[in-house]
Amino acid sequence: MTDATRSLQLNAQGQLRHFLSLDDLPRELLTELLDTADSFLEVGARAVKKVPLLRGKTVCNVFFENSTRTRTTFELAAKRLSADVITLNVSTSSTSKGETLFDTLRNLEAMAADMFVVRHADSGAAHFIAEHVCPQVAIINGGDGRHAHPTQGMLDMLTIRRHKGSFENLSVAIVGDILHSRVARSNMLALRTLGCPDVRVVAPRTLIPVGLEELYGVRTFTRMEEGLKDVDVVIMLRLQRERMQGGLLPSEGEYYKLFGLTTQRLALAKPDAIVMHPGPINRGVEIESAVADGSQSVILNQVTYGIAVRMAVLSMAMSGQTAQRQFEQESA
Amino acid sequence: MTDATRSLQLNAQGQLRHFLSLDDLPRELLTELLDTADSFLEVGARAVKKVPLLRGKTVCNVFFENSTRTRTTFELAAKRLSADVITLNVSTSSTSKGETLFDTLRNLEAMAADMFVVRHADSGAAHFIAEHVCPQVAIINGGDGRHAHPTQGMLDMLTIRRHKGSFENLSVAIVGDILHSRVARSNMLALRTLGCPDVRVVAPRTLIPVGLEELYGVRTFTRMEEGLKDVDVVIMLRLQRERMQGGLLPSEGEYYKLFGLTTQRLALAKPDAIVMHPGPINRGVEIESAVADGSQSVILNQVTYGIAVRMAVLSMAMSGQTAQRQFEQESA
Amino acid sequence: MTDATRSLQLNAQGQLRHFLSLDDLPRELLTELLDTADSFLEVGARAVKKVPLLRGKTVCNVFFENSTRTRTTFELAAKRLSADVITLNVSTSSTSKGETLFDTLRNLEAMAADMFVVRHADSGAAHFIAEHVCPQVAIINGGDGRHAHPTQGMLDMLTIRRHKGSFENLSVAIVGDILHSRVARSNMLALRTLGCPDVRVVAPRTLIPVGLEELYGVRTFTRMEEGLKDVDVVIMLRLQRERMQGGLLPSEGEYYKLFGLTTQRLALAKPDAIVMHPGPINRGVEIESAVADGSQSVILNQVTYGIAVRMAVLSMAMSGQTAQRQFEQESA
Repeated sequence: MTDATRSLQLNAQGQLRHFLSLDDLPRELLTELLDTADSFLEVGARAVKKVPLLRGKTVCNVFFENSTRTRTTFELAAKRLSADVITLNVSTSSTSKGETLFDTLRNLEAMAADMFVVRHADSGAAHFIAEHVCPQVAIINGGDGRHAHPTQGMLDMLTIRRHKGSFENLSVAIVGDILHSRVARSNMLALRTLGCPDVRVVAPRTLIPVGLEELYGVRTFTRMEEGLKDVDVVIMLRLQRERMQGGLLPSEGEYYKLFGLTTQRLALAKPDAIVMHPGPINRGVEIESAVADGSQSVILNQVTYGIAVRMAVLSMAMSGQTAQRQFEQESA
Repeated sequence: MTDATRSLQLNAQGQLRHFLSLDDLPRELLTELLDTADSFLEVGARAVKKVPLLRGKTVCNVFFENSTRTRTTFELAAKRLSADVITLNVSTSSTSKGETLFDTLRNLEAMAADMFVVRHADSGAAHFIAEHVCPQVAIINGGDGRHAHPTQGMLDMLTIRRHKGSFENLSVAIVGDILHSRVARSNMLALRTLGCPDVRVVAPRTLIPVGLEELYGVRTFTRMEEGLKDVDVVIMLRLQRERMQGGLLPSEGEYYKLFGLTTQRLALAKPDAIVMHPGPINRGVEIESAVADGSQSVILNQVTYGIAVRMAVLSMAMSGQTAQRQFEQESA
Repeated sequence: MTDATRSLQLNAQGQLRHFLSLDDLPRELLTELLDTADSFLEVGARAVKKVPLLRGKTVCNVFFENSTRTRTTFELAAKRLSADVITLNVSTSSTSKGETLFDTLRNLEAMAADMFVVRHADSGAAHFIAEHVCPQVAIINGGDGRHAHPTQGMLDMLTIRRHKGSFENLSVAIVGDILHSRVARSNMLALRTLGCPDVRVVAPRTLIPVGLEELYGVRTFTRMEEGLKDVDVVIMLRLQRERMQGGLLPSEGEYYKLFGLTTQRLALAKPDAIVMHPGPINRGVEIESAVADGSQSVILNQVTYGIAVRMAVLSMAMSGQTAQRQFEQESA
């Protein structure tokens, strides 16, 4: 998928035009994205600016799978950019009248929607739409199956950079259900691209996919005591109970005993280590309340940064897509 | 209904103040509406401008019958005009608390809504509201029963005018389930008013209402081979399976065999004939995929024009209603 | 609760920062609120201005209990202030993923929402959130249990002041199901604070809470003939059938016979008395249609004033909360 995805996500000038996956996006582009997100955050406050960058543009949330949190954050990000926002729950819409998905999306495009935020349970759905259905619309992946959740990946990177300055000398531990996590994959990709030298995965053996070390250049651990040792950043994953099938996991109580982030275990990390979590958190399942609400936790900061990162993705993709259309019109 | 409807839709200066039906709207007004819609379309692109014509105004979608497509297009049109939009699914709202429909609508009016887009399954519901419930609010008919779908009618006229220049020497064939189609009736009315000399209706005998020729000045055909001969425009209707009862129709396969628009049949029309469809299309039921996606199809253009036509209707009705209120205040 | 509530609702300079209850809000603040609301109403028309006071701010409707009317009026008020609006039906949102209410609200705060409009069935929910969950967000009580509905109280005061000039020499009768009415309590508090000398409560004995006279300085009546005598204002309450349990009430027909507001009974009040009702009205249950639609009824005016009052509450609380944050930052 490498080369194809790259050319699909970038326009002729190398600017972002779709945001589908962190595979093969170059370091410069990820850095530009983080810089742009930074510019939307107000100094000294947990607040995000309102800017007129997408005034007159229409962002359409196309959700094949319900997700209040993703919908709300993208809706807020689009409104902060002064865009108009339309939300469509596609499963319950005109597909019930026998219309094909292809036709539904082409109709939305014809209604002059400039951008689709796509949430779909199948890996590669956003990629398929960008390549085969609506290449002229900027397609943003709002999370697909187990594959990718690239805006979450980038908001995690923004969090790390804002609290640790850079990625160059960091040790980062990703802890939990790696196997079912679209967050973990996006994070491993982004950390590698941004030059983080020590990425560790800590999980029960049954939840670590085979070949992870080679694929992403990470180290794997099956015991918290070793995995957390002297790290700068702990990224806890949500226990995706609704995605698990067939006894891969012990009971919640036993999981917490082995892999829950408690105050004692956090003490193994560096004293100024930060604790991250994509939310929503399961208190007492993968994380102790005292840690989630403690001074090292940046979990709520992540939520704020998430709005800024989505604003960066939307505005950069819009601008790259527009440039590409002008380029194609001039060439034609 | 003729005279009453006319005076109801127009203000004392003959400007549009409600948009209920194409019955008796004069040719000049339909032409002004098409000109206004044209002004909202950007040159050389399938895109619609954002303009501040309804800034500070509130458009309320009052839907007694669910329709994602109609809701979305009116919502987009209102937002492109910079209006605030509120959507109310009336069937599930406070009427469940025992409030009458009359009170619900009067309350919305009192909340300072300037315009209602009404979608109702009963013919004449929008007309009734404009006449008896909220005469001071601009009422827009978003489709009622089998009766009227006037914005669809006007977007079809805009499509024809943009692709064929004028209506004066055209042959237009309307093909399919005329009996259950609110689109067909609005189109026949608009084509007659705008001076189209040759309007043909092509359908199974059981789906052609008695007296259609006299009522709308059209010619009826029961065979595609005759009806499509040398036409400039083919308007396919959606097979409204959900509206049909009791064996008026053959099976889908047989319907397609007799009335489906295939590449061969389209060849009977003029070489530059355009193909239209109100959507959503049933591929392989009333239209062949190769035709729907082919070079003569303007089906997706219709969707874009639909936003512009709705913008024209909303802005003209708002302006006519405001003028009428000032006139009444000065007279009082 | 008195002192604690007062300091919670007001900032260090005595400005509104949360709007939870009318308990102990001083007369000057209620008057400022009414003056502000007045400024949003256009002269000579049932219309509300659009102003840019909350441009760039995000108002989040957090509804734990469904209420189309409350949601719509706050949404309209926020949009008239040029705010962005997000609506969250919390019962069906991520709490289903096991997230606690606390975490849901803290997440919304972190998404940079500036204000929450909270609707909850439990008395004191908004108060709890303002005190313990999100003290930095301006919390507006959109109605809680039987306790308070303070924006309804203030829109009723605005209605009385606009139609009667002042509160100083007025007799006001509140009629109906006092026991289950959050409206009644808010009204009694506001009328007392604003200096209304004669507030009467008229209801069946079983629907009058014990100690009402001492608590709110009102007089109670169990017969309409005495309670309505020479009053300037009649506030009818909705018969909250859905909130009643166990035979406290006679049948609807019998209730109407004893406490319904008919033309004859209204004749007992002053000739220029106004008739109010929070809506939605039950025609023929607590009020005769001829009275609801008659010349003394200001029921639909109340709806318009309600938008203006909500705009006043939102803009004043936003400004007081912002001032408080700056004050705390400077002190820190």
